[in-house]
Amino acid sequence: MGEKNEYRCIGRNTPRTDGLAKVTGSALFSADIQVSRCLTGKILRSPHAHARILSIDTKKAEALPGVKAVVTGADAPVRYGILPVSQDEYPLAVDKVRFIGDEVAAVAAIDEATALQALDLIDVRYEVLPAILDPREALVRDDVKIQERTQEANIERRIHLVFGDMEKGFAEADYIREDRFFKDAASHAFLEPHSALAQFSDGKLTLRTSTQVPHYVQRALSKVLGIPADKIRVIKPVLGGGFGGKGEPLPLEFAASLLAIKSGLPVRITHSREEVFLTHRGRHPVEMTLKTGVKKDGTITAVQFNSLLDGGAYGSYGVVTMIYSGQLLTAPYRVPAFSFDSARVFTNKPPCGAQRGHGGVQPRFAFEVHLDRIAADLGLDPLEVRYRNAIDPNTVTVNELRITSCAFKECLDKVAETVDWKEKRGKLPYGKGIGLAGGFYVTGAAYPIYANPMPHSQAQIRVDRDGGVTVFSGASDIGQGSDTLLMMITAEALGVPEQSVRVVSADTETTPVDLGSYSSRVTFMAGNACRQAALEIRDHLLAACAAQLARNQKTLTITGGYLFEHGKEEPLMTFAEAAVLAEAAGVALCAMGSYRPPELAGSYKFGGVGPSPAYSFGAQTAEVEVDTETGEIRVTKIHCAHDLGFALNPLTASGQAEGAVVMGFGETLLEHHAFLPGGRHSGPNFLDYKVPTFLDVPEVDVTLVESVDPCGPYGAKEIGEGSLHPSLPAIVNAIYDAIGCWFHELPLTPEKVLAAIAKKKEAP
Amino acid sequence: MGEKNEYRCIGRNTPRTDGLAKVTGSALFSADIQVSRCLTGKILRSPHAHARILSIDTKKAEALPGVKAVVTGADAPVRYGILPVSQDEYPLAVDKVRFIGDEVAAVAAIDEATALQALDLIDVRYEVLPAILDPREALVRDDVKIQERTQEANIERRIHLVFGDMEKGFAEADYIREDRFFKDAASHAFLEPHSALAQFSDGKLTLRTSTQVPHYVQRALSKVLGIPADKIRVIKPVLGGGFGGKGEPLPLEFAASLLAIKSGLPVRITHSREEVFLTHRGRHPVEMTLKTGVKKDGTITAVQFNSLLDGGAYGSYGVVTMIYSGQLLTAPYRVPAFSFDSARVFTNKPPCGAQRGHGGVQPRFAFEVHLDRIAADLGLDPLEVRYRNAIDPNTVTVNELRITSCAFKECLDKVAETVDWKEKRGKLPYGKGIGLAGGFYVTGAAYPIYANPMPHSQAQIRVDRDGGVTVFSGASDIGQGSDTLLMMITAEALGVPEQSVRVVSADTETTPVDLGSYSSRVTFMAGNACRQAALEIRDHLLAACAAQLARNQKTLTITGGYLFEHGKEEPLMTFAEAAVLAEAAGVALCAMGSYRPPELAGSYKFGGVGPSPAYSFGAQTAEVEVDTETGEIRVTKIHCAHDLGFALNPLTASGQAEGAVVMGFGETLLEHHAFLPGGRHSGPNFLDYKVPTFLDVPEVDVTLVESVDPCGPYGAKEIGEGSLHPSLPAIVNAIYDAIGCWFHELPLTPEKVLAAIAKKKEAP
Repeated sequence: MGEKNEYRCIGRNTPRTDGLAKVTGSALFSADIQVSRCLTGKILRSPHAHARILSIDTKKAEALPGVKAVVTGADAPVRYGILPVSQDEYPLAVDKVRFIGDEVAAVAAIDEATALQALDLIDVRYEVLPAILDPREALVRDDVKIQERTQEANIERRIHLVFGDMEKGFAEADYIREDRFFKDAASHAFLEPHSALAQFSDGKLTLRTSTQVPHYVQRALSKVLGIPADKIRVIKPVLGGGFGGKGEPLPLEFAASLLAIKSGLPVRITHSREEVFLTHRGRHPVEMTLKTGVKKDGTITAVQFNSLLDGGAYGSYGVVTMIYSGQLLTAPYRVPAFSFDSARVFTNKPPCGAQRGHGGVQPRFAFEVHLDRIAADLGLDPLEVRYRNAIDPNTVTVNELRITSCAFKECLDKVAETVDWKEKRGKLPYGKGIGLAGGFYVTGAAYPIYANPMPHSQAQIRVDRDGGVTVFSGASDIGQGSDTLLMMITAEALGVPEQSVRVVSADTETTPVDLGSYSSRVTFMAGNACRQAALEIRDHLLAACAAQLARNQKTLTITGGYLFEHGKEEPLMTFAEAAVLAEAAGVALCAMGSYRPPELAGSYKFGGVGPSPAYSFGAQTAEVEVDTETGEIRVTKIHCAHDLGFALNPLTASGQAEGAVVMGFGETLLEHHAFLPGGRHSGPNFLDYKVPTFLDVPEVDVTLVESVDPCGPYGAKEIGEGSLHPSLPAIVNAIYDAIGCWFHELPLTPEKVLAAIAKKKEAP
Repeated sequence: MGEKNEYRCIGRNTPRTDGLAKVTGSALFSADIQVSRCLTGKILRSPHAHARILSIDTKKAEALPGVKAVVTGADAPVRYGILPVSQDEYPLAVDKVRFIGDEVAAVAAIDEATALQALDLIDVRYEVLPAILDPREALVRDDVKIQERTQEANIERRIHLVFGDMEKGFAEADYIREDRFFKDAASHAFLEPHSALAQFSDGKLTLRTSTQVPHYVQRALSKVLGIPADKIRVIKPVLGGGFGGKGEPLPLEFAASLLAIKSGLPVRITHSREEVFLTHRGRHPVEMTLKTGVKKDGTITAVQFNSLLDGGAYGSYGVVTMIYSGQLLTAPYRVPAFSFDSARVFTNKPPCGAQRGHGGVQPRFAFEVHLDRIAADLGLDPLEVRYRNAIDPNTVTVNELRITSCAFKECLDKVAETVDWKEKRGKLPYGKGIGLAGGFYVTGAAYPIYANPMPHSQAQIRVDRDGGVTVFSGASDIGQGSDTLLMMITAEALGVPEQSVRVVSADTETTPVDLGSYSSRVTFMAGNACRQAALEIRDHLLAACAAQLARNQKTLTITGGYLFEHGKEEPLMTFAEAAVLAEAAGVALCAMGSYRPPELAGSYKFGGVGPSPAYSFGAQTAEVEVDTETGEIRVTKIHCAHDLGFALNPLTASGQAEGAVVMGFGETLLEHHAFLPGGRHSGPNFLDYKVPTFLDVPEVDVTLVESVDPCGPYGAKEIGEGSLHPSLPAIVNAIYDAIGCWFHELPLTPEKVLAAIAKKKEAP
């Protein structure tokens, strides 16, 4: 690894390779791909929150001219699910429906109008069952079973974990505080609705789908359809945002496939925005209680965390969400003793799943507000409390997270400095305030979702005689810019200009396996695989050139697209000429690199959901203005300092942080994924579900802090998810600074603010 | 290499992988690919056979609403050409036009009607120059220079070669005969007209084009447009026949690219059928004289061959055509002394180029008829004469063709047996006859078209954990089924079912270099590269399995998709499981194979156009019926026996031979690519230019003869081109047997037959 100032490609602001195509409209998203004779597929959804299906009669629909295929649960009654422990979904309902929007049947027709008309002609007879909408009710109602597999009431899974000596921790505390928090559900609100285009020919299924995880989709299709995986090709076209909502196999992917198989014609299903909301998979609503013991100076002695996750009707990623929600509380602060009780329950609502910052957003909001309350109670500066507890590099947390690189303190320093903390905190006029919060996140999961000993990422690289370099990577660029990063890493490792590198990605047939875009794993893992392959080719190339030119290999380098001999200013030849030399000498300029997280020694307790090979850290401050007459909150600025290890592409890294902050901002003040009595979504559209517009969002100031991780590609770690965590509590803490009111439930509507102000006036 | 009956995949009739898509209409040819905002390009062509361009005014065309770009020769005044010795073409005419149809300007507009209207608005002022249409005139007219680079009149190149002792050869002859022959031009008559779709974005050009040679197109575009080759991506979509007519960079490919660059929008140019005829590149018209000395028993002592090739207006492949026309006369018969005088001249007609059987078709027609005349003169059986002179394996011809595998005699035996030669030849009633001819052809050229020491073919293969195998090959499947063969070879070498192998081909970005589909090189060269890569992966896989399973690697084999231990009936595991084992052990199941023809020792005299690494051989008999009242010839059956080394896929190999025979049949009896006085094509359409329909074609009986070539992949050699050569003379010789008339000029129209019969009656 070279010095930073030696790098030619990485470390520089580099526009995304897909940028031009996206802004000029030529990028082809799944819904844009033209295929001749393509049918339109539509899905019939349950109008009931909970019901038994007595019968489905599709005859009239099948008879409608223009209808080419109708499928129901009977066509593929095989369970699947993203986690091995939650195989509880069917492509289309079998026996029961579990939420309003649950998939019942699907139709493929020559156009959308015909398909919609056919849906109306499907006659489904239901026996309506009692619906459970409240997670507390789900905890105890044994008479209603949403999923048959639950043993205790509707609890999918419970967890009780203790690390360290809790009794001792609380005994040593000078002060103990307990709080209850609630973070409501949120939607990913990606711009591109899900779309899947299936083609079946000659025993082979090809699915172009807006997914973050082509590899897992391929596996699930194979299981459900009974087609060998090598006869299933899953391609991720250009994607318009995922944020976790496209991170697992989804019913429309099976439905499109089944319809294509049955009709013999290509079938595309594209969700309406309403369907995006109805099928959800977004942030879990979580009820949380926190009990923390501290010394007088704020030093944490013990933390007890309990949570109840409202999972909706299916498992999805929920068990991971639950485990993450506790496991990701023990940094960025030293917690000597930690206990964690949690349950995820099923309710008759759309399933919740993974969303940006997965697992950590809700507890981080709770813990950072809780910490500020403790500081307030003790009369301490929240910054000092955080600094005092801040974790150092190369430590192992009480729950066995192996922390290596860590620049959390630098992040605190940076935001405190840019916001002018010492001068402003507690000193601004009423209605104005600043708040602080910290956070951290995994950089990829150390375990794959299905247990296997194979690499998590592979990359295949080939150098052509014209100097062109092609990278084949299964990594899924979902808008985060991973294709661009792989291009930059490859160019850097090979010593060629970025423009010579093209990336072919996310196609299970042409690219080697990468597990997908989730858990902020791509840059770290696919980047490492890419770098390994590139370095291997570079070595082969240099060896061949040394032999052909009668030089010592160690005296040769490639940089900027030229072969140089040490100490000489004029290059020996171009990179392309060197490639020709090697090729003519019979050297194959092709290599495959791979990455598998290191196996960690020790007694890690959670098979399947382990720690990460690296962690990012961050701190944020928010500046707010509260209109105490209207309750309106204006967040004027958020300072974000994030330790991303090394900024391979500062431009896109900053963009990731900005996007995360905006999402956190929206969840704090605006977004409300709610349900009417009976289980119907309260407003499955962008009029009712309010995401921030450019007129709403605060100015975001990003500082990239570099700790140079020992295992990251060129030292890089994640930034796209962890930078969301501190946003919510920083805003809430700033509002306290502004108006002296605490808030434990999000989103913070003007009504809540006015109510809090009024209440405070009543009992100050 | 195993025994034939050990093979699991190769050697079996295997349907083409593209078959289903083609017959169901889902295959996407270049003209079918939908791109949003794509413009239609059209080319303005010269109405003069020879003229100087005084001025081109495009203003009115540019002003026409809907026109997005107009380009002329001034936009890219850079010469190119497929051969380094013939860089004499411009994308669009500069200064001069040289034939009716020569490209002058091009327009891109929102639709075809607007583009055509814009062509009419381009004002070109010409100074008409004298046109030369007759090649004999071209030999001597020094006052008119069609190409400025010619030194002597309009002769592009002359060649005079002598091998062996001609004087001695003729001195030893008991009989010497001299004949003159003429073979007219022919068109490839592929079903898919040329089509090129260019897109230019962010400094990168992507061209989807109906080409046989993506690699050479990429190079030529780079030269002409001044864009580095690694910024040019050339993709060959599904192709509807090439036969040599798509075997070189063509003006429409440059025009589409220039228009896309200028307009900033995608541009597609698709030739009309008329344009296919006007731009030609088909079979050269060749005038030939043959003088051969033989012993009384027919043993050849010397052959003198002179030829004059009418090249049309540009060089194209013509120099190769000329050299092949002589060099490919010295087999399949032993010729102790051989001399060869040839010239290729420019005329003001569409350029001639390569066509199936390139270089050998015209002289083979001449020589095989000439040989029958000698046999007739000496009262010898033409079969016996051929058998007596037939070449044996492992010989070097007088002109230094290194013959290794050769089953020419077996081919003669086969056709003589199936046609019942001894019983029928010379014994059928008047009007019925049978005829015989032999032939041979190269299996790829030993030299690349541009001098370079690199592999002619590379193949990159990757095995996935699901057992899927992906082959990346630059080879261009132009309908001959090369993708299918590469799939079969890979499956055989790896020991997996063919269905597990998918081939990605002919894309200069995603696939490694293959020089293209010409000279019958693909199966031999790309097949060898593929086999090498597959065997390397197999070795890695077996080594990894041996290590993981604690077995001796030599006791393990993979076959039928399973890993076996010698002597055990039950497999150890599936291929996919073995791949998982290897991958988990850190073994990269990825390899690149390559093929470069061996360097031949000796004094080969023709730099750039050398011999081939292997030669195919064949013999054919034709059965004809001549209606002596109408002159109509009915060819009832053609027996074709062809030594293709080893039949990797007998189904497609037979198909290749059938297609070649039908093309030879058409050229013998129907096809006439002729010009009116002034140089206008006599009928550039399928009404006037008659290709055989299924009602015309004879029954074709193909026998695949296997000589197992030492260097071919599993012993394979070519069959798609060499099997055309004997068809023409076999028919002509059969007609002699039927009616006693000889014919030296093709095509054999009923008029010519009636005239010959009448002339024979006058002077029998």
